[in-house]
This record gives sequence, structure tokens and C-alpha cells, in this order.
Amino acid sequence: MDGAGPEPHLFVVFGATGDLMQRKLLPVLHRLGTGGRWPAGSLVLGVARRPMDDAAFRAMAVGSLGSDPSHPPASARAFCDATLYYQSVPDETAASFAQLRARIERLEREHGLRGNRIFYLALPLEAFGPTLTGLGDAGLHAGPGWTRVVVEKPFGRDLASAEALNRIALRYFDEKQIFRIDHYLGKETVQNLMVFRFANMFIESLWNRERIDAVEITVAESLGVEGRAPYYEASGALRDMVQNHVTQILTLVAMEPPATRDEDSIRNEKVKVLQSVVPLAGDDVVRGQYAAGAIAGSPVRGYREEPGVAPGSSTETFVALRLRIANWRWQGVPFYVRTGKRMPAKSTRVVLTFKAPPVTFFQTAQEYRANPDRISILIQPDEGFELAFEVKVPGRELRVQTHRMKFHYADVFGELPDGYETLLIDVMLGDSTLFVRADEVEASWRLYDPILRNPPPLLPYPAGSWGPDAAQALIAAWGHRWFLE
Amino acid sequence: MDGAGPEPHLFVVFGATGDLMQRKLLPVLHRLGTGGRWPAGSLVLGVARRPMDDAAFRAMAVGSLGSDPSHPPASARAFCDATLYYQSVPDETAASFAQLRARIERLEREHGLRGNRIFYLALPLEAFGPTLTGLGDAGLHAGPGWTRVVVEKPFGRDLASAEALNRIALRYFDEKQIFRIDHYLGKETVQNLMVFRFANMFIESLWNRERIDAVEITVAESLGVEGRAPYYEASGALRDMVQNHVTQILTLVAMEPPATRDEDSIRNEKVKVLQSVVPLAGDDVVRGQYAAGAIAGSPVRGYREEPGVAPGSSTETFVALRLRIANWRWQGVPFYVRTGKRMPAKSTRVVLTFKAPPVTFFQTAQEYRANPDRISILIQPDEGFELAFEVKVPGRELRVQTHRMKFHYADVFGELPDGYETLLIDVMLGDSTLFVRADEVEASWRLYDPILRNPPPLLPYPAGSWGPDAAQALIAAWGHRWFLE
Repeated sequence: MDGAGPEPHLFVVFGATGDLMQRKLLPVLHRLGTGGRWPAGSLVLGVARRPMDDAAFRAMAVGSLGSDPSHPPASARAFCDATLYYQSVPDETAASFAQLRARIERLEREHGLRGNRIFYLALPLEAFGPTLTGLGDAGLHAGPGWTRVVVEKPFGRDLASAEALNRIALRYFDEKQIFRIDHYLGKETVQNLMVFRFANMFIESLWNRERIDAVEITVAESLGVEGRAPYYEASGALRDMVQNHVTQILTLVAMEPPATRDEDSIRNEKVKVLQSVVPLAGDDVVRGQYAAGAIAGSPVRGYREEPGVAPGSSTETFVALRLRIANWRWQGVPFYVRTGKRMPAKSTRVVLTFKAPPVTFFQTAQEYRANPDRISILIQPDEGFELAFEVKVPGRELRVQTHRMKFHYADVFGELPDGYETLLIDVMLGDSTLFVRADEVEASWRLYDPILRNPPPLLPYPAGSWGPDAAQALIAAWGHRWFLE
Repeated sequence: MDGAGPEPHLFVVFGATGDLMQRKLLPVLHRLGTGGRWPAGSLVLGVARRPMDDAAFRAMAVGSLGSDPSHPPASARAFCDATLYYQSVPDETAASFAQLRARIERLEREHGLRGNRIFYLALPLEAFGPTLTGLGDAGLHAGPGWTRVVVEKPFGRDLASAEALNRIALRYFDEKQIFRIDHYLGKETVQNLMVFRFANMFIESLWNRERIDAVEITVAESLGVEGRAPYYEASGALRDMVQNHVTQILTLVAMEPPATRDEDSIRNEKVKVLQSVVPLAGDDVVRGQYAAGAIAGSPVRGYREEPGVAPGSSTETFVALRLRIANWRWQGVPFYVRTGKRMPAKSTRVVLTFKAPPVTFFQTAQEYRANPDRISILIQPDEGFELAFEVKVPGRELRVQTHRMKFHYADVFGELPDGYETLLIDVMLGDSTLFVRADEVEASWRLYDPILRNPPPLLPYPAGSWGPDAAQALIAAWGHRWFLE
């Protein structure tokens, strides 16, 4: 896996005129090109409904790249001219897919490609099934070289739809060909979780019910729904964040050490965590929706006032959960999960609180309040680790204060690679370690399906707060409080 | 202990014209005075052999303080005039001590002091016994108020002399009146060791033979013997550093949690550590003496060429030891101790190396060398903690590097109080937690006595090196290496 770079291939993007391709994938592809990491001779074939020729598609791409000064126009144009092609697939008929197949084979022939293909589905959920079927029926699931298909999130909108989508995908493709993307898994800190735990004996020896009192996972955004109301109205925080990103972090925090570092060993352990989660009851969940409020002193409107949101919308923009993992490592240690829009800060972090010392040896005349030590894993916006521990305040009296040791990635390594870049190269190399396996995605939906089918009441919270008060009560009932506030 | 300040008293310093008083104690006393922490009405009575009146002694003190700009002349003069007195004690006859007693009583009467007395013996070793005897025979061991006696290091030069000194001291004084000083115990980081261990559950849960592979204590000086040859020739590194400072650090690192934070609970636990140390054999010790070499690029002479050092001196300026502590917590964990002059850097630190992970899960094509994690307790020149752990290097390949989380006292608390200041206030308050008890000092001498009586060969090492090669071999034989190099 550490040897040669990816083989030359044809990178086919469905949804090539859409936001994800234009704003996210193109910059990564261009960076790979200018960085000498683009496999020589590889081409990109953009696919979308609208009719357009190669030149128009290249001009569109050059325009998209041009909005960021890190992509100089000359270089962007050279890359696009040499690499980008376009094929309209106006509908999901067999004829359209046959035309696509013909175009693919012609491009490969003309450019001496040996038939390695990636189909990247940068599409809305409802298009995944028809596109996979179209590819399969056209015989594009198996070409002269390897064939891989990348499916963006959301992979389903509940357990039944995820199972249906897996059935379609697996009708044509092997599991090893399918790359279900979760861009959180491309983040360095998320990957580093395994190194942090399993390359550091002292960390792993603390990572259990004997030493840990509670685990908090917070994914807070200060943004509102912004321009994504049509998507978000049909989704909500549980589908948009919890089922995928947050659950990925949860499984990496909680999993057992895998037997090997191959992709199935690791994913087996992640699935086992999900299998050990005690089914959620209604009172384990708080759903919230932001009302008008203020972010950083500026007033912002409520969710229901956002353009494109129904005035009586029941979509949640905040979820808090308390989970139990009933296995040998974690029985008795609550996992608290929280995500929301319009929180006071953008911050993604995992906080593990250690148990308090059994005796407060340093009890003095003034009451000593034992601050439990904590390890924080910072994922966004800074990436790194912090360790909060008790320190003696200088001076004769024995006073104790909480201070932090810190390790921030940026201090040592500078800017981190884009998560999408990591994941794209993985796809090109055929390494699916950082992608979500069929049984994993279903296990995750299985966990949240009861909540989706029978959602608890929706509670308003002011924009700029940490969610409804009920989120505090949720974990106070189990003797804890959220650390990040 | 945290309540009122110290009571007014007479602070009697033997050796009042000497270096320790003039350079170390006077600045602390003046700082207490200007800082409003000098107990109102308390006086200092300087005692030495030479005849001198109060005015001359005050002038001497003002001159000594004047060498440091943090003691403005006007303030220094005001403090000295108001506080300092002098009494010559030309010999150890009963008559001389009777004169001292008369002076003490007169001063107390004239200044309305109620008879609380501290006798601070800033004297060479050989004067401790006669002075304690003189005080006792003159009835100064018990006055109208409380009486405390402070004994500087070295407390003895071997087990027999330490026992003899304790016998003399305890003939007149109760153990609770005797304050055997070790100025390392005044250092914040040394005191913080107990807080670090016992107020932080995750630290204490790692602090044992299950998790720790080895412990290193290094006290390195870059200075040579400087002006102290006459003292040092008769002492050497084992007596000057190991028996006291290093052993204090060792016991604080290794001890069990005390039942209470009172002075005897803590010192009981420290003695237990010393009782559990396996007696040293000759091959557990390396003795070295610096030869000519270079410090920071500048040539320096060897110890035997220093003024006041015998050309054939067999005094060691370097000691390395390997110790075993045969108790439930530490059996099987080697403690490596090392101190020396003319090392490459001035550095005092304790390094605890964790055991390596049981499997190197991250083994890749290029060989993965497991770097064991370490906790470093920094004592000099910076004070703080560092945690060295393994981090994933950003990028697709799973590469691992060692990085550090740091907590440095100075970043949070600024300059730390002088250790002597802490200890002087403790004496004034009668808190002997940070002083060495009779059985403790004897247990320490008992440990090193066999080495003193039968010293292993003296090996030369170049100034500016980490000691003789044999110091590396000493611990390599047990599978380890020194971390600080």
C-alpha cells in the first residue's frame, strides 16, 4: 500500500456540473495534477444531464478553479484542457448509458488507457439507485481493468432505504468495488485516533471503563442551514451528521484494536461497536430547532424563517443523544453525542473524562473541588490533542488548578491535506479502509431508525446557544455535564 | 496550616558572615520584609566567630544585598537597620554560648519578643555537632516560646556520622524541633510531584510496574567545581547530590499515596521506599571524574587541574546508579540515577518511560520502530511536564512520529518563588513536611554507605560529555538507555 502510486484510469464524475464537483473535487484533482500526483495519462470525464461540449465544461471548470487564488489561471487551464472531457447523460435510459459506455471506450482507446475506471456519484440520494442500475445494465460495472464506484452521502435516509441501496449496488458490484464516502474519515485527526490509541500504550491502557467516566462527542457548527434548505429540510441533523460523521468518530473512539491494519479488520471492529450499542429509547434523545438569536453579537433568523424552509418545519437542526455501549470495555461509561447548527462556535471534538481520584488527598480548609482530568481530541477547527490535568499553584499553600498540555497539529505540520484528497487517492489505490462498508452503514441506520420513525418532540433553542435546556438535563440525569460550552 | 502567618520570633543564624547567609538567606529575608510577609517585630541575630558590631554586620548585609538590583539600597538599608543584630561566638565554650543566651534574652526583652527562636545552622558539617551541643548545654534547646533548629546539608558524611549527629541533636531537641533542610524540596516541581500523582487519577493509574518500563533521574550540571574545591574534595557527587537531592526526588516519585497530608504520613511513605530498595552492589554504580574537555565550544580544564583540588584526587564528580525497588508497585522497574558536573547541559529531570504497546499494529513495509512514550518531569532549568507520544504524520501513508505535549510552569505562573523562601516560611510556621526526618536521612545513608566504604574504580570522562561510557553500559546491560542526551 505504500509502494507505487495509483494506476492510470478514467475518472468519471456524475453530477459534474454540481457544487461538490465544482467546489470540492476539481480543486483536489487540479492539486494532484500540479503536485505531480495525478497518475500520468489519467482523464476526467464529467457527466451531467445538460448538453455541453468538452470546451464548455473545461471553461466552467476553469471558472470554478479561478475563484481560489491557489489555482493560477494558466495552470488551471492547462490541466483542464489536458484532462477534462464531458458527456451528457440526459436521463437514466439504457440508450443514454449505452452512449456513455461508447464514449468511455472511445476515450480509453484514443488515449491508450487500459480500462481502469472510477465512477464517482456526486449526486443527490434519489439518483444513486438509478445511476448504479444504469451503470450495471450497461455492463459498466465490469470493464477491461478495475472498476470502482464512489457513493457520496447520504447513503439512504433510513434503514430500509439504505438496505435497498445496498441491494442495488451489490447486484452489480462487489463490496470491494464500492467506496461509500464519509469525508470525516479523510480528516487527519480522525485517522490519527487509531495511532493515538494503538501506538501509545499509556493511552490505550486508560481507554476503558476502569479509567474513563464519560465520553462526549460534540460537532458544533455556528452556520445555519445557509443555501442548503431543500436538502436539509428532507434530512435534518440526525441524518446529516449523526448517522454518518458522528457515528464514525464514535466507532473509532470505542473500537477494540484490530487484528491487522487491513480494511476489513478495522471495519469489523467498527461494526462490533455498533452492534454493542444499547438500543436508544425516546428519552435518550433531544431534538432541537434553532429559533432567532445571535451569533457573535449579530442577530440571525430562526430556521423556520430561512429561505426554502417550511414555516411549520419539523426538521431538527440539533440532536443530543446519550448512548451506552454494552461490551467489556465500555459497560457503564456513557457516550454523549451532540451536534447542531447555530451553536456559539464551530467546534468538533471528543472529550474523554477520567474518573476522579478515589480520595481527595489535597483536601484543605477551603473546600477542594476535584476537577476530573480530561483528554480532548480536537478535530475542528484546530486539530490536535489536549490533556487537562491538575497542577499545584506555586506557593506555600497546597492549592490545585486545572491546566492543559496541548499538541496542535498545525504547530508541527503546518496546513493539513484536504480530507477529500486523502480519500480520492485511496479510491485510486483501491484502499477502502477509510470508507464505510455495507454492513457498517446498515448497522448505523439500525441504531437511529427507531428515532427516525418515532421522533421525540422538537424543542426550539435560540441561535447562538448550546441547544435546548433539555440537552443539559439529558446528561445531568446521568450525573454529567457537557464540557464544551 | 493555611491560616495565620508565622508568629514573631528571633531568627538566629550561625555562619552569618558566610556565603549561604550572605548570598541566599539574606535576600529571602529581605524579600519577606518588603513583601509584608516578615512577621512583625521579628529580628535576625547573626552569629559568627569574628568580632563585629551590629553596625558592621548591617553594612556587610547591605553590601551583599546591593549586588542584586532587585534589592534597592534604601529598602535594604532600612530592613537591615531595623532587623539585623550580630553576636560573636568565637568558640564552642560554655562561656561563649552563655553570652549568646544572654544576648538573645536581652534582645527579646528590649523588643518585646515572647521567646520564639529559630537557630539556623548555616555551617560546615563539622560544626553541626559542637553547635547543637553548645546550644543544648546553654539551655537554648528550650526557651519561653517555641524553639526550632535548622540544619543545612550535608547531614553527615556516611551512615555512622549521620547517626552520631542525630544522636547529638535528639539529645537536646525533639524530632519536631529539627528541620534538616534539602533545598530541592523547596522547588515547586518537586512539591508538585505529589499533586501530579495524587490529584490526577490517570497519572497515578499509570504509575506502576504494569505500565512503566524504567525511570530515569538525571541531575546534570554544566558547571565544574568552581570555588568549592575544599568542600567538594571531601564530599564528591554521591554525598553532595545523590544521598540528598536525588534520593528525595526518587522517594517522591516512587512513594505510595500517604494516608493524610500531614508531615509524618508523607515522610513515612518516603522512608518505606528507601527500605524497599535492593542493596546496591559494586557493579550497580559508575563513578566518574571530569578530565579536560569543552563546554559549549570553550575548553575547560579537568577536575584535578582545578585550584584547590589534589593532583591525584579520587573524588568523583559523576555518579550513575541502577536501583531496584522491591515492592508491589515497582518490582522489575529499574530506576536509573545519574548526576555529574561538567555535563553538556544544566538539566534536572525525571523521565518515566512507558512500556511499549504489546503489538506494533502500525507495522508497514518500512520497519516501524516503536518509540516508547515518556512522561518527563522537568525540575531545572525549566519547571514543568512533557509527555512524549506517537502521532500520525499527515498524509496517506501511515507513518508515526514522536511529538510532545508540554506544560511549562513559567508559561502560566511566571517566575516561581525561591525554594529557600518556601522552606524558611515552613520553618517559621513549624511545618516540617518538606524537611528530612532522622530515620529518612539515615535510611538514605544506609543505602549508599556500602559504596562509600568500598567505592568502585574512578573513571575519567571529558568535560562536556554525559560521563564515562560505563554509565551507558551500566543500563544497556538492563536493556535501556539514558533519554536525556
